[in-house]
Amino acid sequence: MRTRPLKVALLGCGVVGSEVARIMTTHADDLTARIGAPVELAGVAVRRPSKVRAGIDPALITTDATALLKRGDIDVVIEVIGGIEPARTLITTAFENGASVVSANKALLAQDGAALHAAAEQHGLDLYYEAAVAGAIPLVRPMRESLAGDKINRVMGIVNGTTNFILDKMDSTGAGYQEALDEATALGYAEADPTADVEGYDAAAKAAILAGIAFHTRVRLDDVYREGMTEVSASDFASAKRMGCTIKLLAILERAADGESVTARVHPAMIPLTHPLASVREAYNAVFVEAEAAGRLMFYGPGAGGSPTASAVLGDLVAVCRNKLAEATGPGESAYTQLPVSAMGEVVTRYHISLDVADKPGVLAQVATTFAEHGVSIDTVRQQGKDGEASLVVVTHRAPDAALSGTVDALRKLDTVRGVASIMRVEGE
Amino acid sequence: MRTRPLKVALLGCGVVGSEVARIMTTHADDLTARIGAPVELAGVAVRRPSKVRAGIDPALITTDATALLKRGDIDVVIEVIGGIEPARTLITTAFENGASVVSANKALLAQDGAALHAAAEQHGLDLYYEAAVAGAIPLVRPMRESLAGDKINRVMGIVNGTTNFILDKMDSTGAGYQEALDEATALGYAEADPTADVEGYDAAAKAAILAGIAFHTRVRLDDVYREGMTEVSASDFASAKRMGCTIKLLAILERAADGESVTARVHPAMIPLTHPLASVREAYNAVFVEAEAAGRLMFYGPGAGGSPTASAVLGDLVAVCRNKLAEATGPGESAYTQLPVSAMGEVVTRYHISLDVADKPGVLAQVATTFAEHGVSIDTVRQQGKDGEASLVVVTHRAPDAALSGTVDALRKLDTVRGVASIMRVEGE
Repeated sequence: MRTRPLKVALLGCGVVGSEVARIMTTHADDLTARIGAPVELAGVAVRRPSKVRAGIDPALITTDATALLKRGDIDVVIEVIGGIEPARTLITTAFENGASVVSANKALLAQDGAALHAAAEQHGLDLYYEAAVAGAIPLVRPMRESLAGDKINRVMGIVNGTTNFILDKMDSTGAGYQEALDEATALGYAEADPTADVEGYDAAAKAAILAGIAFHTRVRLDDVYREGMTEVSASDFASAKRMGCTIKLLAILERAADGESVTARVHPAMIPLTHPLASVREAYNAVFVEAEAAGRLMFYGPGAGGSPTASAVLGDLVAVCRNKLAEATGPGESAYTQLPVSAMGEVVTRYHISLDVADKPGVLAQVATTFAEHGVSIDTVRQQGKDGEASLVVVTHRAPDAALSGTVDALRKLDTVRGVASIMRVEGE
Repeated sequence: MRTRPLKVALLGCGVVGSEVARIMTTHADDLTARIGAPVELAGVAVRRPSKVRAGIDPALITTDATALLKRGDIDVVIEVIGGIEPARTLITTAFENGASVVSANKALLAQDGAALHAAAEQHGLDLYYEAAVAGAIPLVRPMRESLAGDKINRVMGIVNGTTNFILDKMDSTGAGYQEALDEATALGYAEADPTADVEGYDAAAKAAILAGIAFHTRVRLDDVYREGMTEVSASDFASAKRMGCTIKLLAILERAADGESVTARVHPAMIPLTHPLASVREAYNAVFVEAEAAGRLMFYGPGAGGSPTASAVLGDLVAVCRNKLAEATGPGESAYTQLPVSAMGEVVTRYHISLDVADKPGVLAQVATTFAEHGVSIDTVRQQGKDGEASLVVVTHRAPDAALSGTVDALRKLDTVRGVASIMRVEGE
């Protein structure tokens, strides 16, 4: 066994970074045995050097990340800063200085994954990022390596713990969105500004990364259709229950039936209670992967948090260090299929539409005609009247999203339709 | 990209082998892109050369596996023969002739994994075996690589599809064991001789392999405590239901609380209906992994079948071929902790015991005293009398298996105990 240690620079020392540093210290012997050489924390770049960091030698702390990377003796860089800059520049600097990179940065990878992969390859180095998607759940590696001999046709998952916590609360207690969000914030599941989670930006970044791996094609954040879950109401949950469903914020990646294009989207959807994703509670994540030969696989676990994310980072660290010792690299970006990403309008799924309508004869006929004119076939209709007003709940068969949008635009123009209360896709059947 | 193909020898061409050959042909371009070089099926060793094998060039078929391996140009050997011999000798011959090996052979790996790993390492070659455990479910690689920076404390899973199908039928229809087995046989889920499945040998082999990976220690098949599920009755399921439980055949691997030893066992057990493993239906497999930092992860999917197993084999093939091209090897055996495997008596869990007793005063006191004398604390007792006979159902708190065995031996000697109808462990709480 080699005795000269591999030197690791840690960029960022927040919830995840401090846990990575802690485990590197407490489990140093295990890591040495698994890598085949000791690993040494050679420096920790932080923004606030004065903060007390238990268990980390103060001499390792620096505010000059660039100088740390340019020392010339760093073998591996762990980037847990998050966000686009300075993370992007620092990762590039790491590659230029001969260090492989382990990153947990979903936003950056979704936006600039291709360029970062190219930089890694140019320098013969690794870029690993298991922690960027679904926290501790091994997902990137199984999809990239275990299923490398298979063909993935569909990925559907709950990849954001905050929104799953909120939706689970709404489902189990009947609470409205704001009340459930307040509870999530109080318990630390939601950030003070929850926009990235509740508007689906976080899930969309993960969807872009997973789509790239699943389909061996380049999918950027902008290619992912995104709808948040702030409009989901207690009455939507009541409707879902009547259908034997619950509501989840899902990331859905699909290969088109002809295999010539893919779609990537994030939005709230009704799924049957019998679907395994329906029973994913609290802040847990779970991802279904459907592959041609393997069939239906599911991966489940904690999707966030310091320790789980650190577990994923350290798994990557072991692999990257082993590659360094073997003077090899792991699988890089695989984008050989170059499939186009279709717009949301081409997605084919089912819909649950609630309409507020005038309570008079002929309304249903008018509404049904509008659906038919746009080629959207109706599965069931439920009509409920009260005081001259009525609500009409329509569930459709599978239809292209563009056809449904056209239907809804036309419905809004009908005199008898007072308003479209909600539109939700129905998945998982 | 390299244009000279990597040459693959396929040993065995049954349900899995023929599917591997088919996918290698139909998805040749994808495999080439993912590996970085073409792969060519250079020979297929079979027992019955006269059998028609659609899609395989008859010129590739041979009955002389040894000669195929000794040709000198084989890069990778895929072994899907199963069983100990001739698989063991052939794998050894493959290593001696410079070929890496992908195997789906759980029996051989559980019995001789250490020697095979040593042979691979001696020749600087790979031994991969994702398909040996839980079919298509990526499990070996996530445990060996994704969790390489974490500490796995517990693995609990359904790793045999046949027995899960039988138990699921018993649970959902109220059928007895024999009736459910007959249905499984008729549907092709059980083999004509179901011993390896129903007596837990198959699950025990997988348990040995998983324990080795989870605990970085060598666990042989003989180290795994094994109890089959042929004694599980419809009345056990009725008892389980009264407790809000179902019954599953589980493989359970645990690190002792002091971290100084491990246990490995396969037996039927009651688990609460709320436990995620309780909802694993039909022939599906699922494995829970509890790691120190990652928390609780679950992996779910089809545990057997030609296509799913082929998917796992081909994922390994891609990795092994990539390693060959990079002149590197993947992670080998990791057995550095060398923890002792404790006997079943040291396992600590809960128990559900059904006794047939005389229906007279003082019986419960006598039974309770016997439990107390052996240090086994009772959680609940349910007593039910009929015609001078009565049944007593005792559920205990956690106690060592040896203490429970001692209790049961003593109970059998009581005059008032007519018989011990069933003993079942209670897990997953």
